Amino acid sequence: MPVGKVAATNGNSNSAPRVVHHNDPMAHELTLDDDRLFPPDDTTRKIARRIYAETRDLPVISPHGHVPPAWLADNTSFDNPTRLLITPDHYLNRIMHANGVELSELGVPMSRPVMDEAGNRKAFRTLCEHWADYRGTAMRYWLTDQLVRVFGVRQRPSAETADAIYDTIQAWIDDENHRPRQLMDQFRISFLATTDDPCDDLRFHQKLHADTKFSEAHTVVPTFRPDKYLEPARTDWNTSIDRLAEVTGLDTSTLAGYTDAMENRRAYFRANGAVSTDHSHDDLAAEYLDDALAQELYRKARRNEISGEEAVALRRHLLMDQARMATEDGLTMTLHPAVWRDHDPATAEAYGQDVGCDIPYAVEMTKALRPMLNAFGNHPNLNLVLFTLDEDTYSREIAPLAGFYRSVYIGVPWWFIDAPESIMRFKQSVTEMGGFSRISGMIDDTRAFCSIPARHDMMRRLDAAHLAQLVVIHRLDEDEAIDQAHRLVVDNPKKVFKL
Amino acid sequence: MPVGKVAATNGNSNSAPRVVHHNDPMAHELTLDDDRLFPPDDTTRKIARRIYAETRDLPVISPHGHVPPAWLADNTSFDNPTRLLITPDHYLNRIMHANGVELSELGVPMSRPVMDEAGNRKAFRTLCEHWADYRGTAMRYWLTDQLVRVFGVRQRPSAETADAIYDTIQAWIDDENHRPRQLMDQFRISFLATTDDPCDDLRFHQKLHADTKFSEAHTVVPTFRPDKYLEPARTDWNTSIDRLAEVTGLDTSTLAGYTDAMENRRAYFRANGAVSTDHSHDDLAAEYLDDALAQELYRKARRNEISGEEAVALRRHLLMDQARMATEDGLTMTLHPAVWRDHDPATAEAYGQDVGCDIPYAVEMTKALRPMLNAFGNHPNLNLVLFTLDEDTYSREIAPLAGFYRSVYIGVPWWFIDAPESIMRFKQSVTEMGGFSRISGMIDDTRAFCSIPARHDMMRRLDAAHLAQLVVIHRLDEDEAIDQAHRLVVDNPKKVFKL
Amino acid sequence: MPVGKVAATNGNSNSAPRVVHHNDPMAHELTLDDDRLFPPDDTTRKIARRIYAETRDLPVISPHGHVPPAWLADNTSFDNPTRLLITPDHYLNRIMHANGVELSELGVPMSRPVMDEAGNRKAFRTLCEHWADYRGTAMRYWLTDQLVRVFGVRQRPSAETADAIYDTIQAWIDDENHRPRQLMDQFRISFLATTDDPCDDLRFHQKLHADTKFSEAHTVVPTFRPDKYLEPARTDWNTSIDRLAEVTGLDTSTLAGYTDAMENRRAYFRANGAVSTDHSHDDLAAEYLDDALAQELYRKARRNEISGEEAVALRRHLLMDQARMATEDGLTMTLHPAVWRDHDPATAEAYGQDVGCDIPYAVEMTKALRPMLNAFGNHPNLNLVLFTLDEDTYSREIAPLAGFYRSVYIGVPWWFIDAPESIMRFKQSVTEMGGFSRISGMIDDTRAFCSIPARHDMMRRLDAAHLAQLVVIHRLDEDEAIDQAHRLVVDNPKKVFKL
Repeated sequence: MPVGKVAATNGNSNSAPRVVHHNDPMAHELTLDDDRLFPPDDTTRKIARRIYAETRDLPVISPHGHVPPAWLADNTSFDNPTRLLITPDHYLNRIMHANGVELSELGVPMSRPVMDEAGNRKAFRTLCEHWADYRGTAMRYWLTDQLVRVFGVRQRPSAETADAIYDTIQAWIDDENHRPRQLMDQFRISFLATTDDPCDDLRFHQKLHADTKFSEAHTVVPTFRPDKYLEPARTDWNTSIDRLAEVTGLDTSTLAGYTDAMENRRAYFRANGAVSTDHSHDDLAAEYLDDALAQELYRKARRNEISGEEAVALRRHLLMDQARMATEDGLTMTLHPAVWRDHDPATAEAYGQDVGCDIPYAVEMTKALRPMLNAFGNHPNLNLVLFTLDEDTYSREIAPLAGFYRSVYIGVPWWFIDAPESIMRFKQSVTEMGGFSRISGMIDDTRAFCSIPARHDMMRRLDAAHLAQLVVIHRLDEDEAIDQAHRLVVDNPKKVFKL
Repeated sequence: MPVGKVAATNGNSNSAPRVVHHNDPMAHELTLDDDRLFPPDDTTRKIARRIYAETRDLPVISPHGHVPPAWLADNTSFDNPTRLLITPDHYLNRIMHANGVELSELGVPMSRPVMDEAGNRKAFRTLCEHWADYRGTAMRYWLTDQLVRVFGVRQRPSAETADAIYDTIQAWIDDENHRPRQLMDQFRISFLATTDDPCDDLRFHQKLHADTKFSEAHTVVPTFRPDKYLEPARTDWNTSIDRLAEVTGLDTSTLAGYTDAMENRRAYFRANGAVSTDHSHDDLAAEYLDDALAQELYRKARRNEISGEEAVALRRHLLMDQARMATEDGLTMTLHPAVWRDHDPATAEAYGQDVGCDIPYAVEMTKALRPMLNAFGNHPNLNLVLFTLDEDTYSREIAPLAGFYRSVYIGVPWWFIDAPESIMRFKQSVTEMGGFSRISGMIDDTRAFCSIPARHDMMRRLDAAHLAQLVVIHRLDEDEAIDQAHRLVVDNPKKVFKL
Repeated sequence: MPVGKVAATNGNSNSAPRVVHHNDPMAHELTLDDDRLFPPDDTTRKIARRIYAETRDLPVISPHGHVPPAWLADNTSFDNPTRLLITPDHYLNRIMHANGVELSELGVPMSRPVMDEAGNRKAFRTLCEHWADYRGTAMRYWLTDQLVRVFGVRQRPSAETADAIYDTIQAWIDDENHRPRQLMDQFRISFLATTDDPCDDLRFHQKLHADTKFSEAHTVVPTFRPDKYLEPARTDWNTSIDRLAEVTGLDTSTLAGYTDAMENRRAYFRANGAVSTDHSHDDLAAEYLDDALAQELYRKARRNEISGEEAVALRRHLLMDQARMATEDGLTMTLHPAVWRDHDPATAEAYGQDVGCDIPYAVEMTKALRPMLNAFGNHPNLNLVLFTLDEDTYSREIAPLAGFYRSVYIGVPWWFIDAPESIMRFKQSVTEMGGFSRISGMIDDTRAFCSIPARHDMMRRLDAAHLAQLVVIHRLDEDEAIDQAHRLVVDNPKKVFKL
């Protein structure tokens, strides 16, 4: 039975929330209302319900995310509730960290040996004790949705209920129907992209593809993520480039060889189903250097003699060339700029990367992207999706760019800003200038596998809420809103990622 | 019969939108609800209706825009629907361009010979086919309003309805009652400013002024737009300055001569009714150089020997001097900064300027404007209107500046951000800090003549929506809201532009 | 009788605003509705009422503000309505200034001799005449609340009613029950922090503390505000440092001596009850210099030989050291960056500082704070509250930082942005990423003593409005919302300021 259907019976369908007294024990029931996220005004809410009804059961298309392909290939069990829900999820962990919890108590990093049951139960109890700290957050929204719809939990998390909830989830995990491949069915995920190193042999993808019964119903593809091969300032750059030579059998001692090797790996990814490349650098600038200079900087980089400034110039040259390759091989190019990775080095040293201490900063697009857009911005073969963590750019840069350049699409909110209010701000900012046709469609960008249905369902509810708001003030007719909701879920990602 | 009255009968006055089924043919009727843009909550909507009722029929004051004065002077026919609605309107065209249409197919640029009927019909059909791409945009809102209220169209645009709609509009155009001067009556435009080159002889304005019957009922005035005379880095700068000498009979080989010539042309514009000057540069900085240095840079510029940096310094000096002139001749000064003009040079080369590829970027006001405001910011004769495309500056810079300096007024949203949601964000951001008294009043800034009623009506509806929201949460009494709505339409533009 | 109770009877409790006609004399009654600031939708409004009912009568905790301690120590009368409400309040005065009033007509600055009654009445009438200029502003909201709830005024301010209102307020002032200490009871202010110079002897605080009856019911403490001792570029820096030597008896000719003196004064403030230090500089950067360089720059500064750039580097070093001291003495550190003080020098010269011409500009946090956060950001003894006037930083920098670093708390909106709509934007931006647990709790930051109840009541209403919005879309249960509202008023400030 699909998750969407479960919700319909589990939720309570009154639109007015139940009035509860401060210590009413019933208040501690964990519920999921069918009208969640819909505008409170009765007329608008009814329109939103009708729009949502048309998209709620559509399959999930997830063209960018971080689910490890090994999980699917090996169809491994999620082991225990902490390792499923807490250890890998820096969204959750960072809030506990801020409130005094050590990341080690939560099992971080994933590369550590799995904690014993006592440790896992303690970590899970810690999360439950901090339940109030998540009020009003996106994490609370997704987790509640998972607890109720996926695991069948009916108690609000707290110190008292932690063990019982742990047991419920453990029993769910231990059921062989809840392995990743079975969940792909139950979650109705029709398309899922992972994120992969250019030198990856993609054997997990190949193994999965070889299961024809699975791969007839589900498309799982890799994504080419070459950041570390484009950053000559990184201490591991030369190691990466050596590895690139080894994997491709090409000579990467010159820029020409590097370019061949890159094209070779992009082709390999393409052959294995990839539809896009993903790029995250300090800024969005991309610009060709004079050929001779580019070659000279590349040689200096290979000899570890490149300066910081030169490394930036070379990275911009290499990123520009990725855009050129995209016009040739047709892989959609997604940009996720302007995050200070490992803002707290002590934490990174102790726990590694992606553990919650990356912090965004302001980004500039109009000037930085100009050379790339002048060269390729209207190329029929290039799709370029601009993501941002800087809401200022919505109406000022992204929507104006996407409303002119044929290659440019507006990426949906990502990371810190993929939360309900924030997404509504996004919709209200970009749609008026760029229209719906220039939006990427939902990207969940998550490594929290079981949150995928909650995240996509959230976006469909917000689509319905936004469209209903346009209908109720007579900016759209309802049939147009329904058609548009469908397009946002189906047509936009298909167009942008050429599915 | 004024347009406002037409709407009252054409619209349908139910506040709850009609429920339609997906393929209901009735859904394809094009309607315009009388409650459009009003808040959905019933109590608030009723207040908004009452406020709007008090301003809907007031005359239109349009103190800044781009209607060609020749249209009015010669009272030319609009020729055909494409040339009226599509070819000159880069707001519309850029969205089609992003979705794959060539600008040439839309007749761009206006300076090209008019396309034949087949071409015009094809362009119009292209727009209708892309109707869904405009959902949720401001362009869709204005166009619907025009189609229903101005042209009497009752069918939703689509490939199927395109020709019939074209015919309806063509018949409207062919009616001699729909020439620009007649429309000035029907649209109840009492004041209209055009945008003009300082060397323009303003003969169209003079011709129009000579029609005393027309000019008793309507004031049409020029606006002094000297950008290209203030940018010594432009390749056409010396040609412009030579022309300035020719037109004024003054020697512009020295800065003193240039200054005299500028004052001469401002006086000429003033004598021809101008109330303001308009300025759009890369940033807002304006600061006097030391006299000798300014003269030296001017001489270098005249000899084409000025560097990029010097040209910027000289431009800031010249802009500062425009503010000084404004304190003397009383022309209101409006600033529209921080847009990258012709972001895509290939498009500019093929189609010219103002065809939809100008892109905004971040702007700084607090530091940049300080020299000008320290010199003239409280001068009784200077009105300075700050426009922005960078919403960040609303609460951070513009409203704080306008809430202290007597000369500073908050310009209403412009260009990409003159859309309903965006305007509500503006109102909610600046009003709390600066109050209503510091706002410029509506500026339509349009070259789409027939959209003027729709744009001003939109602002009056949004004024009513915003004021109703303040009333319903008891921040204003309703009589105050009604008084304020009237002031925003009548008193604010009269004060800011000294009408 | 506490102010909250007065409001309950004074307000009118209809949630739908009374419909009034344009010139209805009843419209000129000044009312304060019990539902003010609550969302208009009926369901949401009812939830908001229930949430607010649980916090409205809680005592006021005011951990940062600018009430002069002498007022409380000497329990001085407020003298007259102008000197109470207008002269010291630059929020109010700047709007009148923008609309043509000279600050001198309003009695500015406070250090001037008190105007005679004619002058005060004239100033008060000026305010009343400009009542419409405050529509929609926060100042209007606070002032209405004070007029109705504190002074018992029932007439809308206008030229006609000014004298009568003046008389009402004068009679209120003349009542000995309305001296500052009595008002601390009536306003239910349990904790109040003032802002003080590090060299202040704190004798007013000591005098107040000696009144044991008062100090059992109310805690009034100083705040350490060392800005001018950290800015070697200031012309008065050496005088300040000399004074620091004099007050501490320590030798401030070396950096070591300066550091000792700073620690000495922090300890003195701590001993006198201080819970925090407050810092406002041009940017947020703080970073240690190499010891020898720091000492050298300090010596240069003492000899007036420091360059502008060196002064900035030394200031950042000194601010970093304030954070280090905070980890040792436990004083909470609050940062209020990025305002151009005295933007208009002519006004500053005529009237002094803090008279309404300070203007915000953009601020950067992620990069600037990194050295400080890497050193102390997770220190168990440091609480660091980040305030901003740049709304862009809400979701992009502040909430992400506070959602990871244990020391970092999100400061509530301040100054220009402490207005209802703006505060709602704040809540909607930061809560989704950081959760409620990372927010500072209400800070009124005011020198307008009688506005304190209005400001805190406003925040409690907005807390209720925001929480009700989360409840009505089923993101929170109502019991959680009620618990959270209580925490925001009581627990958050206690935790952040270690009360």
